[in-house]
Amino acid sequence: MTPDDFRTAGYRIVDFIADYRARVESRPVMAQTAPGEIKAKLPKTPPQQPESFDAILGDLDRIVMPGITNWQHPRFFGYFPSNGLLSSVLGDYVSTGLGVIGLAWQSSPALTEVEEVATDWLRQMLGLSEHWSGVIQDTASTSTLIALLCAREKATDYSLVSGGLQAELRPLVVYCSAHSHSSVEKAALLAGFGKSNVRVVPHEASNAMRPESLEQMIAEDLARDRRPCAVVATTGTTTTTALDPLDAIATVAHAHGLWMHVDAAMAGSAMILPECRYMWKGVEQADSLIVNAHKWLGAVFDCTIYFVRDPEHLVRVMSTNPSYLQTAADGRVKNYRDWGLPLGRRFRALKLWFLIREQGVDGLQARLRRDLANAKWLEAQITAMTDWHVLAPVPLQTLCVRHEPAGVAGDALDRHTLEWVARLNQSGEAYLTPALLDGRWMVRVSIGAELTEREHVAQLWRLMRDAAAS
Amino acid sequence: MTPDDFRTAGYRIVDFIADYRARVESRPVMAQTAPGEIKAKLPKTPPQQPESFDAILGDLDRIVMPGITNWQHPRFFGYFPSNGLLSSVLGDYVSTGLGVIGLAWQSSPALTEVEEVATDWLRQMLGLSEHWSGVIQDTASTSTLIALLCAREKATDYSLVSGGLQAELRPLVVYCSAHSHSSVEKAALLAGFGKSNVRVVPHEASNAMRPESLEQMIAEDLARDRRPCAVVATTGTTTTTALDPLDAIATVAHAHGLWMHVDAAMAGSAMILPECRYMWKGVEQADSLIVNAHKWLGAVFDCTIYFVRDPEHLVRVMSTNPSYLQTAADGRVKNYRDWGLPLGRRFRALKLWFLIREQGVDGLQARLRRDLANAKWLEAQITAMTDWHVLAPVPLQTLCVRHEPAGVAGDALDRHTLEWVARLNQSGEAYLTPALLDGRWMVRVSIGAELTEREHVAQLWRLMRDAAAS
Repeated sequence: MTPDDFRTAGYRIVDFIADYRARVESRPVMAQTAPGEIKAKLPKTPPQQPESFDAILGDLDRIVMPGITNWQHPRFFGYFPSNGLLSSVLGDYVSTGLGVIGLAWQSSPALTEVEEVATDWLRQMLGLSEHWSGVIQDTASTSTLIALLCAREKATDYSLVSGGLQAELRPLVVYCSAHSHSSVEKAALLAGFGKSNVRVVPHEASNAMRPESLEQMIAEDLARDRRPCAVVATTGTTTTTALDPLDAIATVAHAHGLWMHVDAAMAGSAMILPECRYMWKGVEQADSLIVNAHKWLGAVFDCTIYFVRDPEHLVRVMSTNPSYLQTAADGRVKNYRDWGLPLGRRFRALKLWFLIREQGVDGLQARLRRDLANAKWLEAQITAMTDWHVLAPVPLQTLCVRHEPAGVAGDALDRHTLEWVARLNQSGEAYLTPALLDGRWMVRVSIGAELTEREHVAQLWRLMRDAAAS
Repeated sequence: MTPDDFRTAGYRIVDFIADYRARVESRPVMAQTAPGEIKAKLPKTPPQQPESFDAILGDLDRIVMPGITNWQHPRFFGYFPSNGLLSSVLGDYVSTGLGVIGLAWQSSPALTEVEEVATDWLRQMLGLSEHWSGVIQDTASTSTLIALLCAREKATDYSLVSGGLQAELRPLVVYCSAHSHSSVEKAALLAGFGKSNVRVVPHEASNAMRPESLEQMIAEDLARDRRPCAVVATTGTTTTTALDPLDAIATVAHAHGLWMHVDAAMAGSAMILPECRYMWKGVEQADSLIVNAHKWLGAVFDCTIYFVRDPEHLVRVMSTNPSYLQTAADGRVKNYRDWGLPLGRRFRALKLWFLIREQGVDGLQARLRRDLANAKWLEAQITAMTDWHVLAPVPLQTLCVRHEPAGVAGDALDRHTLEWVARLNQSGEAYLTPALLDGRWMVRVSIGAELTEREHVAQLWRLMRDAAAS
């Protein structure tokens, strides 16, 4: 494909995406295809001869698109908002089109320096002090793994460059809560801690971690000759957006030399609103912190910002320096390859930089405030009904909801919940995620897609009542 | 930004990239900016008010572009070819514009099923048997970490779900060679093995690993009550594209129950040519294998294909299954979140699918054969000169070259080498990567950028002689 062919085909792709975004509301939210249905429509073997762009675009439209669950739909209330604002999309288009790679600073200086600037802009927007340095990673899962590797290496005085984890005698322990994201346990297991060294700290009725319980578990582990290593606290848990008390947890963590990692993957976006910052009071005392700019904030996936207090430690854990990557500029510049797992890196900063510039801080703040108000409105509607319940505090944009008809309880209530939400999702009219809370199914309503206005929340509320009643 | 604004601005971005690609040859290959120069031109604080798209595009052109090292330039001979063919770029534009996320199959069925199809197409193109299953990861670094985690968990019978690595008494050992990529040691260290348990197997004069030495080192480690765990063999090493003898290594690995991982990140692309497949004879006996479709093949970065023989083992190591990710389709579909580190995934398959369709197998093969012929041509030119030397076999598209003027040796020769390559790189006329070979600096010439024709290789050869003579 020549640049001129690309110009013609590129316009068509831009039109395709513009039309998709403009009309996304007319599509079913959840894909309506059966398992294997799309695969069955695609050739099993690769084409020997080149195919026309028309053929590719035709199959995209006819075969692929029905298999898309439309995250940008205004009635997408599942999982979490994964906004990819169109300015951010264009920033990523530039990155992809340029086809440059970050290996060393020299391999594209702008890739590194715009990332320094854009992540520092975000730091300021979140109200974080100058003691934090940011770097873009792909996801929170990867970033939490990095945090726990850094914790492990701090506790073991860099065992990785000597005998490794097996040379450490006292078992290292990681603390989280039952409401921590699944990626926390996954990261701990992959980092080699072992499931029996991942301790689940009890939580309050609000679903927030109990610092006194953390203190008590640490004492127990010390008494058993274990070595407390790290605690992961969450600002805005996945299931209920619960807020772990960071300052109290930090006090315990510091008293015992634990690494403190804060998972603000979802709720971090809200910290661009000064009125929300009470939620992570104490965050300055953490060692590492993640905010997913690719969720509510609107940078198109993937764009997790990993903030650290001590980048030198991070670099010491992650660095490699073979001869073919050495350049004369080393020592005077950042080489972000030593701030994470991959050696090669995309120019991800462009999508964040385009987003912040095109929206301005004011624009981003206004949208998030709209969503918080919509959540409050829906909460008021639901709590006004006798057979509907909001099951957890609503500090942000996620509601945990259950329809509890008179006389229906226990397993029957679970069945009712899963049935009505499946009916609603299958209708394609809206999309919600069921989840377990205290051992029983309920439904999460996660508000905050870019296109979601009050009218869509009101439509959802009607659809929920209809689905539960039918 | 509305869809209509996006249409207008999107055309401008497409034009920007089309113009960039059409005229890339007129730019200096290596960015000419000094450390901190770009950062100094950007505002230190984020904009409070929205900015116009004109302002953003203006800064992109004026501030960012001079800081780009142009990997798509026809005289880019550094590191490795990182081709982002324009059809692949468009596939990625669709992914980014749709803004869909893979979490579970249900969260976008097409994202999973097109990935199954596209990776299976690539498997067939590489001549691999049906016993391999592919999944797209970001990079080889991440994939090698995954491979060593899988090796660790196989050797320890899933210690991660019990006491972790510290509960294992016999130290686990990983084997590689001095020519393995730096990411292998990094992965081993992060997986917890420890540097003293990473054994460097001696290599032949050809820079290929010696299987007899591997056998001997395993025997030594067993005698010291260590537990041989994994061997990483490379098809096409980074510095010299050396070919580790996979079949002989596999024999040793199997005899001692080692996990065998094959790093074909760079050279894997060449395996779409039947005449090259002798290079990885024995690959079918490996447990895991990586091929970077984002290098020579032409899928725009990032697109590493991780092939495994036993996906069930991979899923057992990587899986998480919290309630909010469970769907009715589980068990009947692939959930790729359990095939790697990140939970959320981009629709990366589109860029591979677009590439293969637009090029056809024939088109891809023809380009790679052109590059192999260009490497042979340059090798012939260099070996015809008395004071120039090709220092390693050239099975693929990378030449290891040194200019050795009469009477210049040792440190003085190192200085000469680094000086002339720095002069050449700073001129912006071409870009080469110096590297150490047997303790002395030489220069890698990595041929295979999409736009690189014979004339560009001939130009490079003149530029090299001029730089070395001046």
